[in-house]
Amino acid sequence: MDATAPTTAATPTAFDPKEFRRALGMFATGVTIVTTTAPDGAPIGVTANSFNSVSLDPPMVLWSLANNARSLEAFSESTHWNVHILSNEQEALSNRFARAGEDKFNGLAMDTQPSGAPLLPGCSARFQCKTAFKYEGGDHTIFVGEVVQYDSCAVPPLVYVTGGYALAARKAAPVSTEPLAQLDGAVYSENLLGYLFGRAHFQFLHGIRGTLQAKQLSDTDFFVLSLLSVRQPLAVPEIAAHIAYTGIDSSAASLQSLVQRGLLEQEAGGLRLSAAGTDAILHVLAAAKSVEADLVDRMGEMESAALRNLLKQAILATDPGLPKLWQAPAPRDA
Amino acid sequence: MDATAPTTAATPTAFDPKEFRRALGMFATGVTIVTTTAPDGAPIGVTANSFNSVSLDPPMVLWSLANNARSLEAFSESTHWNVHILSNEQEALSNRFARAGEDKFNGLAMDTQPSGAPLLPGCSARFQCKTAFKYEGGDHTIFVGEVVQYDSCAVPPLVYVTGGYALAARKAAPVSTEPLAQLDGAVYSENLLGYLFGRAHFQFLHGIRGTLQAKQLSDTDFFVLSLLSVRQPLAVPEIAAHIAYTGIDSSAASLQSLVQRGLLEQEAGGLRLSAAGTDAILHVLAAAKSVEADLVDRMGEMESAALRNLLKQAILATDPGLPKLWQAPAPRDA
Repeated sequence: MDATAPTTAATPTAFDPKEFRRALGMFATGVTIVTTTAPDGAPIGVTANSFNSVSLDPPMVLWSLANNARSLEAFSESTHWNVHILSNEQEALSNRFARAGEDKFNGLAMDTQPSGAPLLPGCSARFQCKTAFKYEGGDHTIFVGEVVQYDSCAVPPLVYVTGGYALAARKAAPVSTEPLAQLDGAVYSENLLGYLFGRAHFQFLHGIRGTLQAKQLSDTDFFVLSLLSVRQPLAVPEIAAHIAYTGIDSSAASLQSLVQRGLLEQEAGGLRLSAAGTDAILHVLAAAKSVEADLVDRMGEMESAALRNLLKQAILATDPGLPKLWQAPAPRDA
Repeated sequence: MDATAPTTAATPTAFDPKEFRRALGMFATGVTIVTTTAPDGAPIGVTANSFNSVSLDPPMVLWSLANNARSLEAFSESTHWNVHILSNEQEALSNRFARAGEDKFNGLAMDTQPSGAPLLPGCSARFQCKTAFKYEGGDHTIFVGEVVQYDSCAVPPLVYVTGGYALAARKAAPVSTEPLAQLDGAVYSENLLGYLFGRAHFQFLHGIRGTLQAKQLSDTDFFVLSLLSVRQPLAVPEIAAHIAYTGIDSSAASLQSLVQRGLLEQEAGGLRLSAAGTDAILHVLAAAKSVEADLVDRMGEMESAALRNLLKQAILATDPGLPKLWQAPAPRDA
């Protein structure tokens, strides 16, 4: 029938659905919630990542819904539906609308609904649509809608890829050219995460070094004061346990120097920031926040959010068993 | 005509195309190249991010093409086309197929083509399709294809979002609970990039500290030997210029100690690794590669690639004007 038909092609329906889904999962998508109103007035909503833009003039978008979905009838009978592109902070909302049978809208604040379909707040973008076409698509129905209203805000969007939620970050030009292989067998490459961690760390620190010097604080002083700004009082061995992994010496001698300079005070439970110590670390933290704000401004919100998340993954993956700094401290006997 | 029709809706065609595109750009997508063969046998290919999965049984996917595209006729007349989900290393290929009128396939190696449509190698996934439906979609035509063959590999996919190429990284659970606000006005938060850089850096370093200690190398020694493993010989002021930003003392005294211990040698152009110095840094670098491999294994290839890229962006954004370490050195007079 067709000269170019593949002779080796597998029977399509013989595909292993799990494997086929895994291959499709290599295509990243955003995550949307599509809403409408049932004939009885009930709000309807489903999570879908099968959204896409179609046409600019007229403005049209599409998405598809399984023919066995409980909400198919409502979407088929309604003339209007809203597509919400979820932000990276709406993962829980995505999960809520992905499950069947719940009262999905329970307790949700809703924006005014000019089109009659529910309109959820806090999204990266929203498209209010009027059904233009409904098309057959195998076990799904393809809905094509004409966009009658839209809005967007700069909240980084949620991404779905390889079967899980993700963050997207714009690619940057590489820092420099290929590494020079000076030593046989092992190249200290600028692609080594260990190098990139160090350089990012020291460059950040470089941005606050002026403030550290003005306050006559060494790096060790800075780490000790920072630690106590999160949790205090801490006994000398507790301070050592938190700082040992840095390789920086926080011996009794360097702590004693901070006491002598009036930045720390000894009390029953351990060491605590004095008023002068609090003042000093507040100045340094203000400088750090300024470096951070500048960095986020240059990199972008989306990239900064992704970088934070990935650094936390790296920190979890290399944790040498540090005491948990940000958990509430255990009740003290003293 | 319709009770639910919005009375405040803008006329669809009045949308500013640039603004509308920007809102649509909040929905992240992968990037595909779709190929087919023209009636005259010429290979045809276009970059498209309007791809999506539609149906599992039968397996179907869709994408859309502008009605004014030069390739529309070829795709409309052909019965088969292949969708290639591009990997994060195929940005150049995406750009090549996004431009009109080039000989896009010039010089490209092609895999065997059972379906008759060109099949490109190196992609994250590929779907060989037989046209199932062609649908009207405003100024675009929607192609729905039945998948007759597919394959995939674990190369992280390319992402397109907010008008540019991006990398996706799976979201991880947060490291711990909310920060404790101990100090008024400035919280040293675990969300501060400056903190995360430092912790990631020191934890990575912690993984090689055993090797450093076995080789009796201080952190300063490690930085100096690493630097010379990338570029040597370097004069003392050059070493200082590369290392100063770390705040670590690489004074003449510490360099002299490395010479005395037989790890560095003085020559006309500056300092150079001795055989013993080369051996020492190779051992440390092997340890670093092992920590790195373990980290990449735990985080995943996709996340590691995104993290490297984002750290490079952060390094560029905070660069205090360091000499370029990985560029080929300028020709020397000496």
